[in-house]
Amino acid sequence: MKKILEHIDDSMPDLISDLQTLIRQPSVSAKNEGIEKCAQLVSKMLRKSGIKSEILRLKGASPLVYGEIKSKKNPHRTILFYNHYDVQPAEPFELWDDPPFSGKVKGNKIFGRGSADDKGELVTRIKAVEAFLQQTGDVPCNVKFVIEGEEEIGSVNIEKYLKKYQTKFSCDGVIWEFGYVDAKNRPIIGLGMKGLLYVELTVRESIRDAHSSLAVIIKNPAWRLVEALNTLRNSSGKILIRDWYKEVTPFSKQDLQLLSSEPFDESSFKSEYGITEFVNGKKGLQVKKALAGDPTCNIAGMISGYTLQGAKTVLPASASVKIDFRLVPKMQPKKQISRLKTHLKKHGFSDIDVKVYHGEAASRTNPADPFVDVVKTSAKASFGSYIVNVSNAGTGPMHSFANILRAPCISIGSTYMYARIHSPNEFARIDLLKKTTKCMCHILDGF
Amino acid sequence: MKKILEHIDDSMPDLISDLQTLIRQPSVSAKNEGIEKCAQLVSKMLRKSGIKSEILRLKGASPLVYGEIKSKKNPHRTILFYNHYDVQPAEPFELWDDPPFSGKVKGNKIFGRGSADDKGELVTRIKAVEAFLQQTGDVPCNVKFVIEGEEEIGSVNIEKYLKKYQTKFSCDGVIWEFGYVDAKNRPIIGLGMKGLLYVELTVRESIRDAHSSLAVIIKNPAWRLVEALNTLRNSSGKILIRDWYKEVTPFSKQDLQLLSSEPFDESSFKSEYGITEFVNGKKGLQVKKALAGDPTCNIAGMISGYTLQGAKTVLPASASVKIDFRLVPKMQPKKQISRLKTHLKKHGFSDIDVKVYHGEAASRTNPADPFVDVVKTSAKASFGSYIVNVSNAGTGPMHSFANILRAPCISIGSTYMYARIHSPNEFARIDLLKKTTKCMCHILDGF
Repeated sequence: MKKILEHIDDSMPDLISDLQTLIRQPSVSAKNEGIEKCAQLVSKMLRKSGIKSEILRLKGASPLVYGEIKSKKNPHRTILFYNHYDVQPAEPFELWDDPPFSGKVKGNKIFGRGSADDKGELVTRIKAVEAFLQQTGDVPCNVKFVIEGEEEIGSVNIEKYLKKYQTKFSCDGVIWEFGYVDAKNRPIIGLGMKGLLYVELTVRESIRDAHSSLAVIIKNPAWRLVEALNTLRNSSGKILIRDWYKEVTPFSKQDLQLLSSEPFDESSFKSEYGITEFVNGKKGLQVKKALAGDPTCNIAGMISGYTLQGAKTVLPASASVKIDFRLVPKMQPKKQISRLKTHLKKHGFSDIDVKVYHGEAASRTNPADPFVDVVKTSAKASFGSYIVNVSNAGTGPMHSFANILRAPCISIGSTYMYARIHSPNEFARIDLLKKTTKCMCHILDGF
Repeated sequence: MKKILEHIDDSMPDLISDLQTLIRQPSVSAKNEGIEKCAQLVSKMLRKSGIKSEILRLKGASPLVYGEIKSKKNPHRTILFYNHYDVQPAEPFELWDDPPFSGKVKGNKIFGRGSADDKGELVTRIKAVEAFLQQTGDVPCNVKFVIEGEEEIGSVNIEKYLKKYQTKFSCDGVIWEFGYVDAKNRPIIGLGMKGLLYVELTVRESIRDAHSSLAVIIKNPAWRLVEALNTLRNSSGKILIRDWYKEVTPFSKQDLQLLSSEPFDESSFKSEYGITEFVNGKKGLQVKKALAGDPTCNIAGMISGYTLQGAKTVLPASASVKIDFRLVPKMQPKKQISRLKTHLKKHGFSDIDVKVYHGEAASRTNPADPFVDVVKTSAKASFGSYIVNVSNAGTGPMHSFANILRAPCISIGSTYMYARIHSPNEFARIDLLKKTTKCMCHILDGF
C-alpha cells in the first residue's frame, strides 16, 4: 500500500488536471446542456485510466457511463462506485468570481460548477483504481462504475437502468456518489438516506377568480385547503394520517450509540438559520434522532389568489400546496400515497386533486455489516478520524441500489461541508481530494 | 318638467360630445397620468354649464374638483353629487377594438376607458343641472359637486377632504358616483355598501429557506400559518374571533321585504362562475341576505415557499396570507382589528405579524328615509321601473360621506351591468345616459 499511496501523492497534478477537464465540459441535465459530450468524456477518461468502459442507453434517458475492471487475484468480490456526471445549473452567473466552468485553481481550491458535486468525487474513485493498475497491474477486487447523467434532475431513470442491467451491475458493496467532510476535517461515513413522497394538493372551486365580495356565496378554495391541511398533522408535527407510522421501527441499540457519538453543533446551526429553538424544543440526542429517523410532512410551497405587493380583494378560483413527506426505512411510498388519499376521502376532501411527483423509499445499511468496518478502517487510515452517520436527513436513490443490487451502500468522500454545492463559487478542496483518493485505495485493498 | 325633459332629448348630441371630450383626456390615477389636466377640464366643463367651480387641494393628494350652484327658489335644500374623474389603467391595450381613449360612438354605445366609470355618470349629473339653468335660470335646490381624482386607487384622501371641507360640502342627500342598470333595463337603487378590513398575516421563522430535510428541527412557518388560519373560522364560514359579530344587527322588516323583491338569477350566476352550489347550500332569500348582510373572512392571497412548476423540496423561511373581511353596519374597522390581534395572541400566535392595509366601515341608508322615495319616484318616471338594493356586497367610501356630512347616500345611474368597466372595450349606453340625465332632473325637482 505504501507504493500506492505515494503514487497518489505524486500524481495529484494529473488528478487536478483531469478534474479541470471534467469541469470545463458543462453538463447541465436540467437544460440538457453538454450531457452527451460529457458522457463521452467520462468514458474516455475511464479508458485512459485502464478501465473498460461503455455507454449504456435507455429510450428517453440520458446515457449512463459504465466502467469495469476485473481483479486477477480476487475475482469473487466486487465494489461498485456510483457517481453522476451531470451538474446543477450555474445561474446566477454574475455571482461567480470566475466563470462557472473555469476549473480555476486558487491555493487549495478548484472552483467550478460540479467541482465538488460530483466530478471531484468521481475523479477520486477513478484515480484510486488507476493507482493500483499502474503500480501493480491489477486491482485488489473487481471494480464497477455506474455514472449516471440525471442525478440533479431526480435520478428519474436510475431504477430502470438498475433493473435492466441488474446482472451487469451486481456487486458486494456500493460506495455512494457523495461524502461530506465536516469543518473539523472529519469525513462523515453515511449509512443511509431517507425516502421521499412529494405531492401537490389542489382545490378548484370556480372557473375564474371572483370579486371577493362574492365570498358570501362562492366557496373559497384556499379556506378548504387550509381545512384539509389542518387534518394532516397536529401542532407538534405528528402526522395524523391513519397508519402513517405503522411500519416505522425504533432505532437499534447500535444506531443509538452511533447517534450519541455523532457531533452536532446546535448553536452554530441555530445562528446559521437565525432560529432560537428547534421543533418542539428538541435538544441533544433528540435533534440527532430527528435528523436520522423522523418522518416529516413539510409544506414546501403554497399558493392561492393575489400574492404581490399591496391589497387586492379577490376570491381565488383555486388553491394548491406542495408537500414533501420524508420517509424512513420500511415506509413504502405507494402505500403512504394510498393512506394519504384514504385520509382525504375519509375527512370529506375527496374533491381535492392529489398529484404525485416523486416517491422514493428510504435506505439504511446495517452498522454491523462488515463493509462498514472496511470503510471505517480506511477513513481512519486516510483522514485520521471519522464520524458514522446512521442516516442522512435527505433523500437519494440509495434504496434502488440496496434493493435491486442487494448490496450495502455507504457514502464517504471529499466534499467539504461548506463547498457551496448548487451555489455560486462551488469548489473542491485539493487536500480532501487527495485524502479521499487514498481512502478509496484503502477500501479497495481491504474489501 | 316637460320643457326640461325635452331639453335633455334635444341636447343629447352636446352630452355625447362633452363625454367624448372627457374620455379623450386620459386620467389614470394609478400612473398619475393626466390627472391635473383632467381636473382642469372638468372644472371648465362645470363652468361652461353655468356651475361655479374651483379646484381644492390637499398636500400629497390629487386635486378635487368642487362645483356649486345655489337655488334661488329653494335655498334650504342641498343635493351633493359625488363622482370621480380618474379612471383605471387601460391595459391590455391590444384587446381594445379602438384606442382606449377614443370616445368612439358606434350605434347606441360610446367606447373608451372611463366612458361608463365614471365620466358617463358625471356628465348625466352636469347636464341635468345645465338643463334647469338653461330652461329656468334656476335650479330646484342647491347643488354641490364633489369630483375626486383618486377613486380608482382606493379614495385614499377623500376622508381628509371631507373633514377639511365639511361645512363647504354640507348637504341633505348624496347621489353616489355609480349606478347600475340590469340586463332588463331596470336601474338598481343602491342604499348601502359593505365595509372592509384588509390585513396581511406573516409568519417568519428562519432567516433563509432551508433544505426540507431540516423540517425535523426547523419549524415550518407555512404550517404555523395554516394552524393560525384554522382558528379564525369554522368550515361553515362562521368567524370564530371573539365578539366579531357583536355589533351586527339583524335586517329590519323593511330590509327583508326589499331583499325578497330583489331579483337574483341563481342559475345564470352559477354557470357564470362554473359552480354547482352556493356556500352552505344557500338558496333564494338566503343568497340575497348573504350578499347584502353577511360579514366575511376571505383569503384573498396566500403564499409560501416554492410555487412554480414541478417539485422542489424546500423549507420556507416565511409564509403570508392576505385576508379581506367584509364588514356590515356598526362594525368598526379599528375595533375589529383589535379583536383580531387579541384573538391571535390568545391562541398563542403573538409572533404573527399583522399588517393592516385598509379599514373602511359599512354604510346603509334607511329605506324609510324620504330621500329614498324621491329617488324611487324619479327612477320610475325615467326608467319605468327600478330595483331597490339594501346594500351592495362590495365596498366604497360611502360611510365617510354618510358619517361626516351626515346625509343619506344613494346610488342610481347609467352604467349597464355588462359595460366592461375596468376591462377592454368599456362603453356607456346612450339610451341609459339619457334616461339617467332625466332621472337626475326628477331627483333635483323632487328634492
